[in-house]
Amino acid sequence: MNEFEVIARFFRPLSRDGTGVRIGIGDDGAVLNGIRDRELVVTTDTIVSGIHFPADCPAGAVGHRALAVNLSDLAAMGADPAWYTLSLALPKVQTHWLRAFTRGLDRLAQRASIHLVGGDTVRSPVLSVTVTAFGLVPRGQVFLRSTARPGDRIFVSGPLGLAAQGLARWQGGQRRSRRLRPFLYPEPKLDWIRVLRRDVRCAIDISDGFAQDLGHLLEASRVGAVVDLDRIPRDRRDPIALDRALFGGDDYELCFTIPDTRLATLRARTRRAGLEGFEVGRVVPGRGIRWQRADGSSASRIKGRGFDHFAKPTTRR
Amino acid sequence: MNEFEVIARFFRPLSRDGTGVRIGIGDDGAVLNGIRDRELVVTTDTIVSGIHFPADCPAGAVGHRALAVNLSDLAAMGADPAWYTLSLALPKVQTHWLRAFTRGLDRLAQRASIHLVGGDTVRSPVLSVTVTAFGLVPRGQVFLRSTARPGDRIFVSGPLGLAAQGLARWQGGQRRSRRLRPFLYPEPKLDWIRVLRRDVRCAIDISDGFAQDLGHLLEASRVGAVVDLDRIPRDRRDPIALDRALFGGDDYELCFTIPDTRLATLRARTRRAGLEGFEVGRVVPGRGIRWQRADGSSASRIKGRGFDHFAKPTTRR
Repeated sequence: MNEFEVIARFFRPLSRDGTGVRIGIGDDGAVLNGIRDRELVVTTDTIVSGIHFPADCPAGAVGHRALAVNLSDLAAMGADPAWYTLSLALPKVQTHWLRAFTRGLDRLAQRASIHLVGGDTVRSPVLSVTVTAFGLVPRGQVFLRSTARPGDRIFVSGPLGLAAQGLARWQGGQRRSRRLRPFLYPEPKLDWIRVLRRDVRCAIDISDGFAQDLGHLLEASRVGAVVDLDRIPRDRRDPIALDRALFGGDDYELCFTIPDTRLATLRARTRRAGLEGFEVGRVVPGRGIRWQRADGSSASRIKGRGFDHFAKPTTRR
Repeated sequence: MNEFEVIARFFRPLSRDGTGVRIGIGDDGAVLNGIRDRELVVTTDTIVSGIHFPADCPAGAVGHRALAVNLSDLAAMGADPAWYTLSLALPKVQTHWLRAFTRGLDRLAQRASIHLVGGDTVRSPVLSVTVTAFGLVPRGQVFLRSTARPGDRIFVSGPLGLAAQGLARWQGGQRRSRRLRPFLYPEPKLDWIRVLRRDVRCAIDISDGFAQDLGHLLEASRVGAVVDLDRIPRDRRDPIALDRALFGGDDYELCFTIPDTRLATLRARTRRAGLEGFEVGRVVPGRGIRWQRADGSSASRIKGRGFDHFAKPTTRR
């Protein structure tokens, strides 16, 4: 099967008529319309076999992940998913692999109402997938990571460290546990976009571990934080849950800040949407993160480990 | 050097203030504005070391190529370059390589007035680069490949087969010849966008060889063609020039069709712009390509070879 046959058989069916798609797959580029007075948000992520997912990862989970990591970025920007392009680098064309891959990809794409508009399929010694995703957001309503202010409350959208736990289970040889799911099929937090749109001050998605990503948010906003370790939502049965919650990757929960004055409306909206947010700390003047226990005692010796690109959080105030 | 240091040192400097860029590199996604009543054209291409360029290709040429192949698609759509994202998968971080790569990339980006707005840098056993490029075009003025009509004249924007000739020289061990240039630094035909905007009927870029890409244009338009082999511009000193012109890849010239009635204005515009187009044939009813000599004799035994994904042109009428 050559490149054109692969596109015709596996990818063209994913290129349904989306809003604003005048030309999808089939020309030198896609032609997109209907952006009008909204802002266009663009994000791109590459996942490589053996680096970002295990070489023996199910094809459907690879397809899911390639899109999910980008949808998570759109959620963190407050942008409604619109279109995506897919570049697939493959060692060889295997029909059953491609079928499962596109099924995993498309299942998530349909739920997220995002439409494939173009791509490239190439040969490569190593499997890798690059998705570029496009979202739309009403002008001026994008969520940034550079806008937190002292006094804001810090929230996370769900339990942390479950993906790292799933990865450990996978590496330990488990293949059927329900607890592999947060690792194999991370769920981008698109439901939060509408809940947060009016009240949020600042947001980022947690892809490289909470400690690191909160660090990025604080650095971009030029502020510090006090985080209450005992309030970080995690699997309390897991003896190393806190470690995984702080330093494990691939959670794809959101971390966001809210001004004090908006707390009540946020709580109401969250409840109405059937979601639950977890307040874990507070933005403070200065730089760095102070990790503390519920009794106020400081836990300053927290150190990063296990993550390749990890930059350890500063604990100065 | 970790991912964030690579971005700060090599890629952030390429993310200058472009038109419509509200947020470039540094958040979960780019925020883009000012599209107004234009159409957005999106194209993506991946190049892999050892497949799309030689493993010993100069870093600057890799950076140039990654962007050039996408700019060529924008030119073929008639879209003015606006923004691009870059995903770079690297076996290891080498400062001198990254410096030369970004220099080659940015030199072309500056000439083309296209702005880096985001990307991803990941580890991978194999070097590969994915660029997604964004162009803007006045509404309804995009060039498509599906709109050729019988009677149209078929043009190419310049000599064909020079990149294949350059590749052969590279493979033969040459490293300094001027004739390596069309292969190492293919030039996207952005100058043609304004020349063609009013008169062109149909366009495609020639990336996989003229025979194959003209075939795509004809198939998308549901028409056939008669092509005069003696009029195909090529290096007449090269004994296998015709073969390279028809089946060699990586030319990145444009192939376009023009209605008879627009020939005079096209010629005038082309001359004013200091460009030269080459008329090589005519669109006819039916399907397939009839290759003929200047004396009208048929050359039906033309066969594809040397190209991985090559689908041979049909010679039926």
